[in-house]
Amino acid sequence: MEKVFDVKVLNAFLTGTVNVLTTMCQTTPVTGKPSLKKNKALTGDVSGAISLTGTGMRGVFIITFSRGAILLIVSRMLGENYAGITDEIKDAVGELTNMIAGNSRKELAQIGMSFEAGIPTIVVGVSHSVYMKVSESAPVITIPFTVDGGFAFSVEFTFEQVK
Amino acid sequence: MEKVFDVKVLNAFLTGTVNVLTTMCQTTPVTGKPSLKKNKALTGDVSGAISLTGTGMRGVFIITFSRGAILLIVSRMLGENYAGITDEIKDAVGELTNMIAGNSRKELAQIGMSFEAGIPTIVVGVSHSVYMKVSESAPVITIPFTVDGGFAFSVEFTFEQVK
Repeated sequence: MEKVFDVKVLNAFLTGTVNVLTTMCQTTPVTGKPSLKKNKALTGDVSGAISLTGTGMRGVFIITFSRGAILLIVSRMLGENYAGITDEIKDAVGELTNMIAGNSRKELAQIGMSFEAGIPTIVVGVSHSVYMKVSESAPVITIPFTVDGGFAFSVEFTFEQVK
Repeated sequence: MEKVFDVKVLNAFLTGTVNVLTTMCQTTPVTGKPSLKKNKALTGDVSGAISLTGTGMRGVFIITFSRGAILLIVSRMLGENYAGITDEIKDAVGELTNMIAGNSRKELAQIGMSFEAGIPTIVVGVSHSVYMKVSESAPVITIPFTVDGGFAFSVEFTFEQVK
């Protein structure tokens, strides 16, 4: 089966990510080139993952931040200066994951794709990698971003039909 | 709201975990004392997470392995000797997460709780931590295990009502 790469779905997550960072974190990220990848990990220092469940479809959304990116983003979000990965940072990553998934779900609903979100999981660990275990036919899309100072973060998502 | 701790749910995940490791990996894990924890991370070197979605309920299941535990388990599962975290190990963690969640779902169905599983995510990183972002009222249950050689792994799960 050929992989389906729908630019409208990509735009939903792109818009969701940029909207939340711009409005909640006073940060306008610079968007890199999206890619269709397979078995290539996202690598970062703090990540959030959330499942998306729709009729006959299931998906997952992951956001992975470098340490520099998440410290800058949460410092602006909460109006305090964070220099390390505290409990507030971890909690904020869960909140950002929720908010970006929620914002992206609204965009997806406008193109007729309706999803419920699951419970976010948060990963903390220097230079960890996150993978998705999907069927061969499922496309995995990655969008890289940078914030002020050149600090990187990435979002990644996939959807597949439920057997 | 008081946290609900249902021993039948705990037993479903305990049975699912032990069943899969015993039958698929020729490994009978030793079960430690389950605990009800809050904001305490699971720490390990390789993890799998999967969402569980039911009518009016959502949950998440996480399994976190120490390096020693996952090398032993996958070596027995695949009948080869693994000395490092290869792509086969990562893939096997996704498969184990799927199988244990599937086996536990069968146990849950027998007590009237029906769930669909999401797409597994896999995390690799030396001594990373995994958290769940749940509402105050949701209980987070952790069960520690050890395998031959004293290598540790843990499973963790939570459920909450969908608002």
